[in-house]
Amino acid sequence: MTIASANQIALGRLTGAEPILIDCGPARTVMGLTGRTVLHAGPPLGWETACETMKAAILCAIRYEGWAADDAEALDLLVKGEVEIAPCHAAGAAGPMTGMVTPSMPVFLVEERRSGGRAFATVNEGLGKVLRFGANDPSVIERLRWIEGEAGPLLGAAIQASGGIDLRALMAQALRMGDEMHQRNIAASSLLARLLMPHLARAGKDQDALARVAEFMAGNDQFFLNLAMAAGKASADPCLDVAGSTVVATMARNGTDFGIRVAGLGDRWFTAPVNTPQGLYFPGFGPEDANPDIGDSAIIETIGLGGFAMAASPAVAAFVGAGGFRQAVAVTEEMAEICVGEHPRFRIPALDDRGSPVGIDVRKVVETGITPLINTGIAGRRPGTGQIGAGVVRAPLACFEQALEALAAAR
Amino acid sequence: MTIASANQIALGRLTGAEPILIDCGPARTVMGLTGRTVLHAGPPLGWETACETMKAAILCAIRYEGWAADDAEALDLLVKGEVEIAPCHAAGAAGPMTGMVTPSMPVFLVEERRSGGRAFATVNEGLGKVLRFGANDPSVIERLRWIEGEAGPLLGAAIQASGGIDLRALMAQALRMGDEMHQRNIAASSLLARLLMPHLARAGKDQDALARVAEFMAGNDQFFLNLAMAAGKASADPCLDVAGSTVVATMARNGTDFGIRVAGLGDRWFTAPVNTPQGLYFPGFGPEDANPDIGDSAIIETIGLGGFAMAASPAVAAFVGAGGFRQAVAVTEEMAEICVGEHPRFRIPALDDRGSPVGIDVRKVVETGITPLINTGIAGRRPGTGQIGAGVVRAPLACFEQALEALAAAR
Repeated sequence: MTIASANQIALGRLTGAEPILIDCGPARTVMGLTGRTVLHAGPPLGWETACETMKAAILCAIRYEGWAADDAEALDLLVKGEVEIAPCHAAGAAGPMTGMVTPSMPVFLVEERRSGGRAFATVNEGLGKVLRFGANDPSVIERLRWIEGEAGPLLGAAIQASGGIDLRALMAQALRMGDEMHQRNIAASSLLARLLMPHLARAGKDQDALARVAEFMAGNDQFFLNLAMAAGKASADPCLDVAGSTVVATMARNGTDFGIRVAGLGDRWFTAPVNTPQGLYFPGFGPEDANPDIGDSAIIETIGLGGFAMAASPAVAAFVGAGGFRQAVAVTEEMAEICVGEHPRFRIPALDDRGSPVGIDVRKVVETGITPLINTGIAGRRPGTGQIGAGVVRAPLACFEQALEALAAAR
Repeated sequence: MTIASANQIALGRLTGAEPILIDCGPARTVMGLTGRTVLHAGPPLGWETACETMKAAILCAIRYEGWAADDAEALDLLVKGEVEIAPCHAAGAAGPMTGMVTPSMPVFLVEERRSGGRAFATVNEGLGKVLRFGANDPSVIERLRWIEGEAGPLLGAAIQASGGIDLRALMAQALRMGDEMHQRNIAASSLLARLLMPHLARAGKDQDALARVAEFMAGNDQFFLNLAMAAGKASADPCLDVAGSTVVATMARNGTDFGIRVAGLGDRWFTAPVNTPQGLYFPGFGPEDANPDIGDSAIIETIGLGGFAMAASPAVAAFVGAGGFRQAVAVTEEMAEICVGEHPRFRIPALDDRGSPVGIDVRKVVETGITPLINTGIAGRRPGTGQIGAGVVRAPLACFEQALEALAAAR
């Protein structure tokens, strides 16, 4: 089979995927995450090489689980190997920023109907001091416990009652409403809230609990982000066994390394040191405070959204400091140069319904030197800070060069 | 005062208005609509000159109120003068399509904070066979009674509990999400549903009733339309006493006549026969089935949205048969030629946040011959049919010519 044919198969799987949200429940039960394991974003990571923000989040996650009373105890468990860390992607999940997943956290379950594959993501915590951005004070743990005890179960009951929610259709609609599903999810979050509301109403025995969950959803324009990521992983994973394909199936960052996986090469990661995002900062912060690029959320660009769909979302272009409408269109056009196709469902109204560029071709990246552009939140590099801004970042070329060599060797 | 100065005052009132949704309750109580009165859309209308669709709706509204058992009895009441008909605008309301408002119908109450003025609109009935499109079978009345008995009271309690909802801010956000608030309200409807959900949860003693109202809102992408109209009227009415201004403060159609009111000339209507919309039809229908232009919803174009904001909503341009993105931008640019300004809050992302054109100047319309373009639903001309499509329609030039003469005479 030619590379072109293999790439068409990979593209067909990626864009034909039907990710359906079917449940929300504890990671322990829903994804079988047992033992003392903390999942993190990005390619595999050794504790010693983790950035401070990632370390702070891991220690906080251990405290959240009650495995340790303080950070010193938590560190001791890690050093003794009594708590393991592993990549989200290795356990079926995709996690934003630090990407923390532990057994007690509720996770959304997304099933890809064509392949039967499954992907998982936690419930987005909202803004401010949150674990995914490396915040680690008692308020972080308190919110996680509320999600575990109240929001997760209610969301799970409502999603089950809904009979499943077609995330591809919802995302296609949200794209028409100015979301690119990475830095802007207000449409997707609102559509989902409206859709779940009747089921939440029927599931909620306790009126106040229902109101709290409704408030939590109403107060978080990025609520949908984690679902977009699970949908992305569920859509991209079926490409991982298309022999000979040069299409990128995963992009992820752990704050130290950027990693990609390629359709033709299965679970193998190709990594290079991450770049640091450039963008706009919240008052009181600047580039010197920025943590290097982090999170599994680049799965969203992998399926043709995020930076690739910038033209659909000029408001994001401004928010991440990437200019006005013309510049947003230019970004989408640039990304089209490294893709093998256009998405048949994810269409951009301001481009007369042209599909979003999708299916990053390792060969095209290396030939043109154009690396994928990713819209991203920016975490503080000082542990406990949280989010300090939003911007854009480029994937490092070296990952693609290594992958291309490996693809050549495998032929 | 020069005309230019007067127009700046009118524009300032129009664009500076702060319409806040503060309640929902029976028209009898909330807007003091007592006696046997049926309000209709557009300028004043005699029964004899009403189109068949309007007549069918009025007779059905009389049956809904229980004043008559059938259409013959209802007609008898009208002929004897025992039921009156009057324009919505004369009673503080704005009604879509036929515009029916009767005392028992719940209406939203929108208060304009700067002037203290108030405007009202009914709860949008949804799609299919609905009174506003002239449908008149038992299912229409059944739905109206459910709105009266269950949805209206619950919405009223939730809105009161919310402390008021800033509709201008919500509409500005929805415009950034591809709504033009006339033929497309999916963003505004979703944002409102998400925002009201916690308050609905707290207000709803009955879990099933809450679920039904949530389903009703989730199932109607045009739920927000009536609120956009009330917000439009609340924003435009304060212009009606700006002496010397040539800015249009009202555009409305009753299915027979198109009418405008102008800032400098108060309550006086200038009318001309309506045009018939051109657009796309639902399967089984065509231009020969279309009712002439009808409804108070052109208040939305009056405040710079709808057709005037077509560039923000290329999906609508396609839906109403007005072409792709370039054509959508061209419509907005054409409308800018007849407006005195740009809206400081209603900004269009794909035009690099340029404000939507607003403040239609009667002089510019007459000078250029460019008449306002209105996005509109199309009702069937055969009574009882309901909606048959959506399209665009032009305001007739003659209204503006008459108004210009009257303005000249008044100086």
